[in-house]
Parts: sequence; structure tokens; C-alpha cells
Amino acid sequence: MNMPAFEPRNPGFDARTRESFARQAAMRTLGATLAVVEPGRVEITLPWAEPLTQQHGFLHAGMVATALDSACGYAGFTLMPVEAAVLTIEFKINLLAPAQGERFRMVGTVVKPGRTVTVCEGHAYAIDGAREKLIATMGCTLMAVTGRDNIQG
Amino acid sequence: MNMPAFEPRNPGFDARTRESFARQAAMRTLGATLAVVEPGRVEITLPWAEPLTQQHGFLHAGMVATALDSACGYAGFTLMPVEAAVLTIEFKINLLAPAQGERFRMVGTVVKPGRTVTVCEGHAYAIDGAREKLIATMGCTLMAVTGRDNIQG
Amino acid sequence: MNMPAFEPRNPGFDARTRESFARQAAMRTLGATLAVVEPGRVEITLPWAEPLTQQHGFLHAGMVATALDSACGYAGFTLMPVEAAVLTIEFKINLLAPAQGERFRMVGTVVKPGRTVTVCEGHAYAIDGAREKLIATMGCTLMAVTGRDNIQG
Amino acid sequence: MNMPAFEPRNPGFDARTRESFARQAAMRTLGATLAVVEPGRVEITLPWAEPLTQQHGFLHAGMVATALDSACGYAGFTLMPVEAAVLTIEFKINLLAPAQGERFRMVGTVVKPGRTVTVCEGHAYAIDGAREKLIATMGCTLMAVTGRDNIQG
Repeated sequence: MNMPAFEPRNPGFDARTRESFARQAAMRTLGATLAVVEPGRVEITLPWAEPLTQQHGFLHAGMVATALDSACGYAGFTLMPVEAAVLTIEFKINLLAPAQGERFRMVGTVVKPGRTVTVCEGHAYAIDGAREKLIATMGCTLMAVTGRDNIQG
Repeated sequence: MNMPAFEPRNPGFDARTRESFARQAAMRTLGATLAVVEPGRVEITLPWAEPLTQQHGFLHAGMVATALDSACGYAGFTLMPVEAAVLTIEFKINLLAPAQGERFRMVGTVVKPGRTVTVCEGHAYAIDGAREKLIATMGCTLMAVTGRDNIQG
Repeated sequence: MNMPAFEPRNPGFDARTRESFARQAAMRTLGATLAVVEPGRVEITLPWAEPLTQQHGFLHAGMVATALDSACGYAGFTLMPVEAAVLTIEFKINLLAPAQGERFRMVGTVVKPGRTVTVCEGHAYAIDGAREKLIATMGCTLMAVTGRDNIQG
Repeated sequence: MNMPAFEPRNPGFDARTRESFARQAAMRTLGATLAVVEPGRVEITLPWAEPLTQQHGFLHAGMVATALDSACGYAGFTLMPVEAAVLTIEFKINLLAPAQGERFRMVGTVVKPGRTVTVCEGHAYAIDGAREKLIATMGCTLMAVTGRDNIQG
């Protein structure tokens, strides 16, 4: 797959992304950290934590999706103009293996940026010691929203 | 759409579903309640809560997905035999409107039960006073798993 | 599910939808007919035909998707203003049962219309004599496009 | 993304895949050719053709999906045991750009093979002279089916 390099329209994309991430209370609930912010690519890491689990002790698929959706959303956000906010239109997640591990790495990558619609993909990895395993993939569609008073950044 | 009535294979489906739900720590984190358990249909309710929000103060799309995935998963679980556990293979969610409201009602319904693979759909509603609004739809594929020691119920 | 009645913005939606459908060569390849055109709802029917099959003699999943995507796309199109063209952003299809039957009925319904983005759902039925069976469900996101010379109607 | 090499369980996977592809009448309708067959990876090529188009003269999204679904399905099939048939459970496609070009290359890759369930991803490229452009991505879930008389190969 040919992966183009992306040119951010907002030179302050890094600070703006980190500032918005800091306002996502859901990321605090997940214990999530914004590990990488690059044009068109964001990584979020989080440790396993009991409050995020389903009945077998694995991370709940929805919690995996929450972190992956934020990784994809912010990957798209890095390429948006300064006046735009980002909303998720839809995403689809495939769970490949139980989400068990010490911690998790969620990678969001822009596949196709657009003025209105941006398409991203996400990959979730479970980490145990030195071993890293792909546990989920996501396809995600974002919309850049401008001019709505209640939706900013 | 013709909605068939489903016959549960496990007469104790109600207690079994409630017992498994009680073991989902993620549902406690969401403040979620198992409101309805019927053969092939489950409803989960939860109040708005700041720890579940994204940067605009709406429920995070992933948190909506977490509750909808559990609603769909347990809808499928009600129709599974007593020895089976349920795992989500994949789901897709369309966010139709910002998840703002006092509380939320998540409805999971079986579309097609199967011995191995079950397909469900989910509908998420935001509730403000007497007003209820459809805010998200989900399509979800489940797998019935048997004979794995670490995955039960 | 509460299904609102939709008000078309283009009073000539019926003729406009039929005219666009007639220009879809893919629908002729499918032997497809535009059976119902209502505001926010479209039905397409087609007979089983060998050139549309996969290796087991069932309709190819992609051919089911082709007809369902058109049903969803035109369902959305009925609610769009006269100057807009419709493009599919994404769709997801769940195949519930093999697509075998004498003929097929594809129903597209608008779930949430929007100025830019419209969300639809599709249901595919196989028909054998008097028996009708749900064989696939689709979730579909459309975009209304205006002002592009090469994309009209 | 770490892409593992896959070991086929059926040494005759190449001939078996080509033989099944030849029985897909839908591939003849698309004018499609099986260009590459490797363990866990299949490429299908097809020329632009008017009978496959939508109202703007682009390839119909469903026809893109038909070719991509076969590419994904056969990618999974290369890794299945000799007694298994392959069925698509679901797929999701994101349309990134209009499907215009002289011809198209559809690449299906296994992300996670499994005894029952296999997950693949697909990438569709439009080709104009020497220029190749990513126009669609697919996420796809397959099921290996055995012991059904009407579903073989």
C-alpha cells in the first residue's frame, strides 16, 4: 500500500491536537496517553485496567473501539484547518483476538483526507512484555465541521 | 421488516444474561443498567456522565458503541445454548446525531441467530425529558464460542 | 424503531430518481427494476440470473450489494435538493443467508437525512413463490454533492 | 503494520483457487482476471466497462465491491483446508474517490486467518496509464464452511 506523506494545513496541529485530547474526559477514564502526534498519524497507549473489561477479563470491544476511534479522529484532526472541529460519522471494528495484555497501543492513520470527509484506518495492538499482537482493525469516516457554536476543536 | 419471534434454547437465559452482565466491569464504568432481557432483545440504559464524554461534552462515540455492543451481544446471548460464550467478531456504528441528553437507551435486537454466527442490530436513543431521539445505529456480528476454558458465560 | 415521514425538498423527486436510475448501466446488467419510489424509500427488484452468481450458484454478495447500494442511494436521493448529486461514502453489508431464490427485493430506507451526509439502511429479500426471506442487511452513508461538473443527478 | 507470512494448509491452493474463480460467473460479467494467487493474498484486475457503471460513468460502488469481495474471499480461501468452502459473512467498503480509470486492480489480503472465521482487507486501485490511485478500502469477514452438500469449493 502506498502511504503518502501528508501536509498539515494548520502548522500548530500538534498543540491543537494535544489540547483537544486533554478535554476528552473519556480518555482519562481509559487511562489513555497521546503517545504520537504526526501529520495524519496518531498513537494512543493505555494500560489494561479492570474497569474497562468485559465478562472474561479482556478489554471490552467498545473500550478498544473508544481508544481506536480517538486515534483515528485525531489522526484526521491533525490535517484539518484551524477553524474545523472533527466528528465521527461512522466506524467499523473487527476484533481479531481477545484484548488481553499488559497494555495496548492504538494507531490511527489517515487513508484519504478531504475537505469535508476524511477516511482513516486504525490498528490496535496488545502488548505483553516484548510481544506485540494485532488484536483489532478499524475503518473510520470523519467529518470536518465548521461554524457550529457548540462544536469546536 | 418481518421480525420473527425467537425461541431461547436455554430456558434460564434471563438469569444467565443478568449474571454475565453483572461481571462486565465496563458496564459499571458506564453506570449502565440491564433494563430489558427478552429472547433476542436486550435494552441497556445509562445516564449522561462527564467521564464518558469527548471534547464537546457529548458521550464519546466509543462509549455509545460500548453500550450498544453489550446490548447486541447480550441480545444474541439470550438465544445461545447454556454451554456457549459470546464474542463480538465485528461491529459497525453510524453516529446520526451528537450523543447529548440526560440519559440513553441502547436496544440490541437479533436479526439472524445461528449456531456459530449471529447477526444483531442496535439502536441508540438519547432521552431529554419526554423526548427520545435516535442517535446511532449498529450492525454487529457475534460468534458463539464453546470449549475454551478462559471464555465462559 | 420510530420511522419519521420525510418531506422531499424536490417535488419532482420521482421523475428525477427514475431518470437517474435509467442511466445506471449497472442496473441493466443486473436486470433490475425500480419498483417503488417514495420519499426516503426505494425498492429495486431483480430476477436470479446466472451471470450474477458466485461459485455455488447463489447471487454474488457483491451483486446483492450493488442492488442494495442503489436502493439506499436512491432512497437518499429522493430527499435531496434538485441541484445535488448523490455519492456513496461507504456501506457495510451483512450476508445472513445464501442469496438463492427466483427473484430478489432490495429495500433502501433513509434513517437520517442531512444537508451533506445521509444515512440509510437496506434490507435484501430472496423470493421463492410466496415465500420471502431476509438474506442481507446494509448500513450506508451517502454524501450530497453539488457544484461538480462531472457529477450530476 | 507487521504482515506475517502465511503457510497454506492445502498445498494445491493455487489450482483450487483458480478453479473456483473460474466458476464465478460474476467474474466473467466483470471481465475480471485472477492476476495473483499467493498464500493469503489475491489480486484481481478488470478493465473499465460501460455495463458496470453508475449514472456518472464511474464504476458502480457495488461492482467495485464485487471484485474486492472476490479478492478478499479468495485470499482467505488460499489458506483454508481442502474440504472447506468460503462464504462472506460481511464486508464494509469505503469509497475514497470516483472509480474512474482504464482499468482496476483489486488486492485482497488476509489480516487474521482462523479455523472458522478469517478477516481480510481489500484495496482497490484505479489505473490510468502509469498512474495508480487508491479508490476504495474494504474490511471483510469470511467463514470456512464444511460439510454442506450445496456449498463446495
